[in-house]
Amino acid sequence: MNIVLDAMGGDDAPAATVHGAVWAARDFNLSITLVGQPDLIETELAKHNTSGLDLAIIPASQVIKMDESPSAAVKNKKDSSMVVGLRCLKEGDYDAFVSAGNSGGVLAAAMFGLGRIKGIKRPALSTVFPNDTKYGHSFLLDVGANTDVRPEYLLQFALMGSLYAERVMHIPHPRVGLLSTGEEEDKGNQLVQETTPLLKASHLNFIGNVEGKDIPAGVADVIVTDGFTGNVYVKGVEGAAVLIMEILKREISSRPLARLGALLAMDALKALRTKLDYREFGGGPLLGVNGVVIIAHGRSDAYAVRNAIRVAKEAAQNRILHAIQSGLSEI
Amino acid sequence: MNIVLDAMGGDDAPAATVHGAVWAARDFNLSITLVGQPDLIETELAKHNTSGLDLAIIPASQVIKMDESPSAAVKNKKDSSMVVGLRCLKEGDYDAFVSAGNSGGVLAAAMFGLGRIKGIKRPALSTVFPNDTKYGHSFLLDVGANTDVRPEYLLQFALMGSLYAERVMHIPHPRVGLLSTGEEEDKGNQLVQETTPLLKASHLNFIGNVEGKDIPAGVADVIVTDGFTGNVYVKGVEGAAVLIMEILKREISSRPLARLGALLAMDALKALRTKLDYREFGGGPLLGVNGVVIIAHGRSDAYAVRNAIRVAKEAAQNRILHAIQSGLSEI
Repeated sequence: MNIVLDAMGGDDAPAATVHGAVWAARDFNLSITLVGQPDLIETELAKHNTSGLDLAIIPASQVIKMDESPSAAVKNKKDSSMVVGLRCLKEGDYDAFVSAGNSGGVLAAAMFGLGRIKGIKRPALSTVFPNDTKYGHSFLLDVGANTDVRPEYLLQFALMGSLYAERVMHIPHPRVGLLSTGEEEDKGNQLVQETTPLLKASHLNFIGNVEGKDIPAGVADVIVTDGFTGNVYVKGVEGAAVLIMEILKREISSRPLARLGALLAMDALKALRTKLDYREFGGGPLLGVNGVVIIAHGRSDAYAVRNAIRVAKEAAQNRILHAIQSGLSEI
Repeated sequence: MNIVLDAMGGDDAPAATVHGAVWAARDFNLSITLVGQPDLIETELAKHNTSGLDLAIIPASQVIKMDESPSAAVKNKKDSSMVVGLRCLKEGDYDAFVSAGNSGGVLAAAMFGLGRIKGIKRPALSTVFPNDTKYGHSFLLDVGANTDVRPEYLLQFALMGSLYAERVMHIPHPRVGLLSTGEEEDKGNQLVQETTPLLKASHLNFIGNVEGKDIPAGVADVIVTDGFTGNVYVKGVEGAAVLIMEILKREISSRPLARLGALLAMDALKALRTKLDYREFGGGPLLGVNGVVIIAHGRSDAYAVRNAIRVAKEAAQNRILHAIQSGLSEI
């Protein structure tokens, strides 16, 4: 396996990306190809023990920044780490591409460089969401690639999500839910009402419409929605978790007895943090493009990058592309 | 002030509603009119000290249940506490109506019984959302009345929300944000892109588009969105908070040392719970109908009902209806 990594993508690149690559190469016995500015990458590599690791560098002189307008950036920066990395994946002998950079940029560059899987109408951005089931996570898509969608797109998102949950997250017969404002079929917006019959008629394990509270509760394994709602949802829950942790921290630190209590409960607090930590699952796939592409959080540190590379390896190993190609004919 | 209360609405009615009414009548020096089945209401009233309180009962033989289809229920149950209570508000000398019942039912009954404020295209359901600003809350609408909306509706939601935040929540010059997938104007769906120019051209304190994470962060005081996205958002955040608390509880209770720690930190944990507790703000107004209507959470206990009645009193006292009527001519 050889994973291509956008060494320049993310708030803390290339320090976090290079460190994550070294870590993943050793832990998962992978070849990793770092794409970006060679001098910066080499400076970072020198900080780690890389003996025995198969790490290569492919030069790319430009960087697409986190706040750049994606389509213009991809068009104008042909020698960016993102564009070059995705060209490698398309043309060379590589298995997957990982980036913690501008997610709109990865989407645009992947559409441009790899194109869609034949038959897929729209690609979808996805995320892995913690819950309290024995699998510990559900899979939510689209979280931002398509802000205005059609029922047929949602049906395809459901298929791709179901295959990903089964093949890569190892959840057998994933329960697919359509995000709505209530379980009843007369609830939801027009899009939901037109999509429900398509999902019911499919061979997917469609359990019906689910509400916002049902995702953390683990009612479904795969939750399908448009990219506008999905994006607002994921960022909202992330923001709420941050608020809860901040209030807790402040309320504790203002009370001496509570500070002692928190010290005694440190292991429990750490366990909570780990359970909710986006870094544990590293990144979500961009599904529907013609290659395995994993997008990690822009704030990824080395550990998150390491885990995103692990996810890329698992997705490639379990032949998710092939599964989607075959699945399309059965839907 | 005389507040009409749907004594039969909510999971724990009439015990919670009657207890909440007694509590509010005493704490806020209000007259309260309980609408519902007299024998059940009297049985509950007998459990409390009501001496010196101005509590009246108006009989209504039917109950609209939490899971009933709203429009059919309102049509068929003309003698339900919801329909009768709203008729009282319209025809009698009352100031506001409060219900913890089926929110779709309250919406349908209010549209039927009160109608819209002249000039308002659609009413909006709203909720008060905790944040970390000095006001402690922001105001989010629509959270479920209209799943498919037009830009003009969102402009009116922004106006109504801004007036409510200013008059009832006492936030001067409320910052109004439009919920989107990014701050940039080219982000968001078609609806957002068509609504942004309307908000920019209005006299409202429009601060631009905000993301899901910006609501808990307190970036805006009033957040406007369609009822589909708003509903999914609010339920999602509620579900995430429940998940976080459940995991924390479990991780603590499985460790003896952490259990001792939690005991020492009990005051801090309680302060967190209070800060996040929906019961503190009781309920959100149904804005745009021709009367002050407050909808409380279906799970409301007596304390939540008490606070919803307080909110109703404040909304009526601060003449929110009149403010919306005048505001419409200035938008």
